[in-house]
Amino acid sequence: MANAQKTGLVITAHPGDFVWRAGGAIALHAKRGMRVKILCLSYGERGESQFAWKKAGVRMEEVKAQRREEAEAAAELLGAEIEFMDAGDYPLRTTPEMLDRAIDIFHELGPSFVLTHALEDPYNVDHPEAARFAQEARIIAQAAGHKPDPERAYAAPPVFLFEPHQPEQCDFKPNVILNIDEVWEVKRRAFEILAAQKHLWEYYTRVALNRGMQGGRNSGKAMTYGEAYQRLFPEALEALA
Amino acid sequence: MANAQKTGLVITAHPGDFVWRAGGAIALHAKRGMRVKILCLSYGERGESQFAWKKAGVRMEEVKAQRREEAEAAAELLGAEIEFMDAGDYPLRTTPEMLDRAIDIFHELGPSFVLTHALEDPYNVDHPEAARFAQEARIIAQAAGHKPDPERAYAAPPVFLFEPHQPEQCDFKPNVILNIDEVWEVKRRAFEILAAQKHLWEYYTRVALNRGMQGGRNSGKAMTYGEAYQRLFPEALEALA
Amino acid sequence: MANAQKTGLVITAHPGDFVWRAGGAIALHAKRGMRVKILCLSYGERGESQFAWKKAGVRMEEVKAQRREEAEAAAELLGAEIEFMDAGDYPLRTTPEMLDRAIDIFHELGPSFVLTHALEDPYNVDHPEAARFAQEARIIAQAAGHKPDPERAYAAPPVFLFEPHQPEQCDFKPNVILNIDEVWEVKRRAFEILAAQKHLWEYYTRVALNRGMQGGRNSGKAMTYGEAYQRLFPEALEALA
Amino acid sequence: MANAQKTGLVITAHPGDFVWRAGGAIALHAKRGMRVKILCLSYGERGESQFAWKKAGVRMEEVKAQRREEAEAAAELLGAEIEFMDAGDYPLRTTPEMLDRAIDIFHELGPSFVLTHALEDPYNVDHPEAARFAQEARIIAQAAGHKPDPERAYAAPPVFLFEPHQPEQCDFKPNVILNIDEVWEVKRRAFEILAAQKHLWEYYTRVALNRGMQGGRNSGKAMTYGEAYQRLFPEALEALA
Amino acid sequence: MANAQKTGLVITAHPGDFVWRAGGAIALHAKRGMRVKILCLSYGERGESQFAWKKAGVRMEEVKAQRREEAEAAAELLGAEIEFMDAGDYPLRTTPEMLDRAIDIFHELGPSFVLTHALEDPYNVDHPEAARFAQEARIIAQAAGHKPDPERAYAAPPVFLFEPHQPEQCDFKPNVILNIDEVWEVKRRAFEILAAQKHLWEYYTRVALNRGMQGGRNSGKAMTYGEAYQRLFPEALEALA
Amino acid sequence: MANAQKTGLVITAHPGDFVWRAGGAIALHAKRGMRVKILCLSYGERGESQFAWKKAGVRMEEVKAQRREEAEAAAELLGAEIEFMDAGDYPLRTTPEMLDRAIDIFHELGPSFVLTHALEDPYNVDHPEAARFAQEARIIAQAAGHKPDPERAYAAPPVFLFEPHQPEQCDFKPNVILNIDEVWEVKRRAFEILAAQKHLWEYYTRVALNRGMQGGRNSGKAMTYGEAYQRLFPEALEALA
Repeated sequence: MANAQKTGLVITAHPGDFVWRAGGAIALHAKRGMRVKILCLSYGERGESQFAWKKAGVRMEEVKAQRREEAEAAAELLGAEIEFMDAGDYPLRTTPEMLDRAIDIFHELGPSFVLTHALEDPYNVDHPEAARFAQEARIIAQAAGHKPDPERAYAAPPVFLFEPHQPEQCDFKPNVILNIDEVWEVKRRAFEILAAQKHLWEYYTRVALNRGMQGGRNSGKAMTYGEAYQRLFPEALEALA
Repeated sequence: MANAQKTGLVITAHPGDFVWRAGGAIALHAKRGMRVKILCLSYGERGESQFAWKKAGVRMEEVKAQRREEAEAAAELLGAEIEFMDAGDYPLRTTPEMLDRAIDIFHELGPSFVLTHALEDPYNVDHPEAARFAQEARIIAQAAGHKPDPERAYAAPPVFLFEPHQPEQCDFKPNVILNIDEVWEVKRRAFEILAAQKHLWEYYTRVALNRGMQGGRNSGKAMTYGEAYQRLFPEALEALA
Repeated sequence: MANAQKTGLVITAHPGDFVWRAGGAIALHAKRGMRVKILCLSYGERGESQFAWKKAGVRMEEVKAQRREEAEAAAELLGAEIEFMDAGDYPLRTTPEMLDRAIDIFHELGPSFVLTHALEDPYNVDHPEAARFAQEARIIAQAAGHKPDPERAYAAPPVFLFEPHQPEQCDFKPNVILNIDEVWEVKRRAFEILAAQKHLWEYYTRVALNRGMQGGRNSGKAMTYGEAYQRLFPEALEALA
Repeated sequence: MANAQKTGLVITAHPGDFVWRAGGAIALHAKRGMRVKILCLSYGERGESQFAWKKAGVRMEEVKAQRREEAEAAAELLGAEIEFMDAGDYPLRTTPEMLDRAIDIFHELGPSFVLTHALEDPYNVDHPEAARFAQEARIIAQAAGHKPDPERAYAAPPVFLFEPHQPEQCDFKPNVILNIDEVWEVKRRAFEILAAQKHLWEYYTRVALNRGMQGGRNSGKAMTYGEAYQRLFPEALEALA
Repeated sequence: MANAQKTGLVITAHPGDFVWRAGGAIALHAKRGMRVKILCLSYGERGESQFAWKKAGVRMEEVKAQRREEAEAAAELLGAEIEFMDAGDYPLRTTPEMLDRAIDIFHELGPSFVLTHALEDPYNVDHPEAARFAQEARIIAQAAGHKPDPERAYAAPPVFLFEPHQPEQCDFKPNVILNIDEVWEVKRRAFEILAAQKHLWEYYTRVALNRGMQGGRNSGKAMTYGEAYQRLFPEALEALA
Repeated sequence: MANAQKTGLVITAHPGDFVWRAGGAIALHAKRGMRVKILCLSYGERGESQFAWKKAGVRMEEVKAQRREEAEAAAELLGAEIEFMDAGDYPLRTTPEMLDRAIDIFHELGPSFVLTHALEDPYNVDHPEAARFAQEARIIAQAAGHKPDPERAYAAPPVFLFEPHQPEQCDFKPNVILNIDEVWEVKRRAFEILAAQKHLWEYYTRVALNRGMQGGRNSGKAMTYGEAYQRLFPEALEALA
């Protein structure tokens, strides 16, 4: 179980995902002193590395190593720790051992929130699989009979789905827009670590600016850069304003 | 525009609605010093007063007066002010004058939240009409060209839909459960002012208890009595935990 | 209030609708001794009479009279009585007086079921308007304060939506398939009264055959001709089999 | 294939489920002379036995035995037979052998209805898995080429989904409310066999009372205790009233 | 009925809408020789002119005249003709006379496509009203009995909904991305005519760039600037590739 | 990668599916000179061969051989090549080797379109499994790191879902109706090769006629026989008319 320090957990299929989709949230909570951990299920070696594969004769292990290095550098810049599962990508296949480890991570970390993929994505089969895996681990982690420990306090943290590449096609409906103004520069620098996906730097900068303007419209308070999330479970509140 | 005191606005079709569906939120925010105003579009004279009409020869004006009295007593007990529009019920028909007045109320009050009905209700045509009316007033109230006033600050408050009688049939999907433990006794006493609908006292007590247990499950924090709401617009947040 | 004889009420925008979409149900229940009444809101004079308007110089009143005659003949053949509202079509516009009359019909008839249009139809604005009107009349008819009568027994009959021309575009999802084998010949003869829409005779014969085969598949009992309906409210049952 | 006696089949993930969610239907049909069989895929040993795991040193086998005993007692009280699959819970994992056995049960029993879980449940991964398994077995059981037997009569019984813990979050939309008044006392006594989940006794009593009131509202006939179901396939009817 | 020249019709609530949302389609088809007509239901005088109202003492007629001028200039730049209805905005209220005129426009123009607003928009009540009005006019225009003319050829053109400000909140699901590369500069210059909404110039430039990238992804063919649409009716095709 | 000749790929669970649901599209594109390939995942030996199993003592291999023969004859008549995977049916279970082969087929063929099953089907578990498999193969086929080949051009073809047996129950919403008039006679002759499912010949003839009439209605151009499809991804267009 977690100590007094609050923690957050981010479960993604590929390295790019935690940068484009949740880099702001990671940097923001890390900056405020939270321990944020990224569980990155694969290195995105097949599907997220088009550039690397253009070099004739490149080997899988090289691509994975290169992607791992980038992911570690991006996580460090954002202020998070990172753990990989090497589950493969395109397709990503999880195993009982991976599930077991993910449940242990829930127990060790006791996260205050979980960030993961949208539940559907017709463009990418790894994304919903990562989301399914995250949900399953979260649910089992609160079952008293899984590795029972009478000392453990149980709680199921809120889940926020981050924004997919083509939100409407994924039935993604944002109900939270996180203000990431104070960490935008960090997020943008993390983009630039992902050299293989340079064509997406400007794309996701535009996404952040447009979500920021929407955030401002919905709240009446200025916001320049935003990250959109879909909260999955009802929130219990002590007041509405 | 509102002064420093925070305010809340509740727009309902009939008197019973603000008691059963939002009585906890009203009492809670009033108790914390907010000014809460109820805009009650009708007296519920036709559809919510089955009991009164069993008396032979009863006249419409009598039923309305009796319902008005009850509604005023309930609002007072909950700590809110109340304004009526006498729009009729079964069917409730709004007019341009009513809309104009509702917009003025938005300007006068500058509410921090608006509570109203679910957007659909196949059992009741007045409920969606009240919700539509509330939405229209809220939207027009922020148009610079409606009764322009260069001094006015514009903002569109968040809207929370309260729980209808048969939530699944109304496509009501709660994403907020408000903890009303500290005002439960007040809400329950307000029930008892609605003598004509005694058969609903226990029904809505059970609703509150079951929503309370769901609130506790979703947050991991104890809650005995809850009120469910559906937040309609994305919320802009500065942090996720 | 209705006497011991059971009754059914069919509310349609145009004459063709009650024949194509509900002719089987009408004939079937009439044959079993029920009183079935059709409330036909218009004569379908503009939108359902393409053929008539090809004759140069034809006048509106002629078209209406001709359509009325056809509708009366079809209703008689099916075994139902029919009442018209002459609300116009394309667009159909209902008035408070029409609503009042429709509520009275609910009171006079005390129907055991109501058949009407699907709630959406992007091809036809009259159809959803008729469905909305039917729902509103049904709801107000059970309000104790509308023309109060202490002798009246209140009940809100189940509503079944009949099949639109292009069901998927109307979000029509059938959950009831009515076996109309024993009255098929009557329904087919009613088709032939609608001389202006001959191109639809075979279309709706095919619809009936295909719904019949689906009915058989879903129940395991033979059905040749079916009519699909969408039941709108939960049904209360005393047993599941 | 079943003999003349009608039968019903209930497929649940955990023991608590058949009691809270379908206990009324089981008792009701058993009381009327139907053979009702429960196929209980796990003992709910990990996720439904929080209480048991608070005892230091308790072993899995003890927890399973205790839960099995409770489940058998509850089934007996309700009047049903019960078969277990010991598929594990949190997570529940089915095997080809289990599927084969479930198909055989469909053949042996020839049920007139199948009751199982809602198709989605973001709080519990075992529930949708049980529903998926039930659907798959039902579909294969009617394929002529699975263990072909020229004597067998084929039919696919109607499926009713029972109510999950938080219906709106599971996209559960009830379209059937079963009147369980005459067996309520039995259902309530079955609750009390589930000593480990005492906090749910009152919760599900309130659910039954509120569904009962909704059942009465929708039908106009008195109902005190109800159980809500979602019928999955269209029903073929011979009349609408 | 239209002559050999193909035509397109755009029905919008406010002037800004046809620029931000459909400016590319208008310029593109105009450039290819089509006659494109904009039916602009209001001048956006109340809700789209925040800037103008900051000037003390400004009168409604001045604001309308200024907006009209801008709208005419923008239409001209895009290559379209424009007709206004002065229906008011916030709220936009249409009349039978306006509907009659819109139907005549359908008859005069015989458009090959209609562009209008999304069917829902919780941020703006004028937008769905304009869409509803457009649909109604289109449907009535093909009724043989509305101003019957035996010479007229009837056809109901395809409808494309253009992109609202916050697409996911409006249940907007794009299924068409139009390549507007060759007219982008024109569209952008039209933005700059709308001086009052300067804060949106960059916003909608980013929307065009991101839709362009999505268009490229979905087709495998390069696209820099795109406009997203939701086609409302099935398309009849002679081949799939 | 494909040569200059355009190609199409059809992925179906059982032989009947490509005939009833996509026979027109196959014949049409073949007739126009395209190479069309059917990937038929099973022989439909258990679930689509009720007739064969009525013969006492028939063996699985006989049924499969007979179905294979029929499928080959139907494919030939339609003008397509066919490849089988023998994945079994009721239930259909795919393997990593099958997925690998399917990805290779995407690479070899470079199809301009993919036709496959609807994403849901509560009547048949093999259909959604085939659709899921087709989607997964299509997605992986465009990952640069799967069997990397610097010469390969990547593109993800559009996907069209063909019509299931009971469209509304499968949430199938057609947005394309393909005119198959010029190949109807071929499609009908292919029906007659499927001797075991004679009861479906007329059913699917009626489906084709009714979809044809709908196609005509939606386009204003005559169509007698149609095939309905649901396009899954947005299409990128160079013009709207």
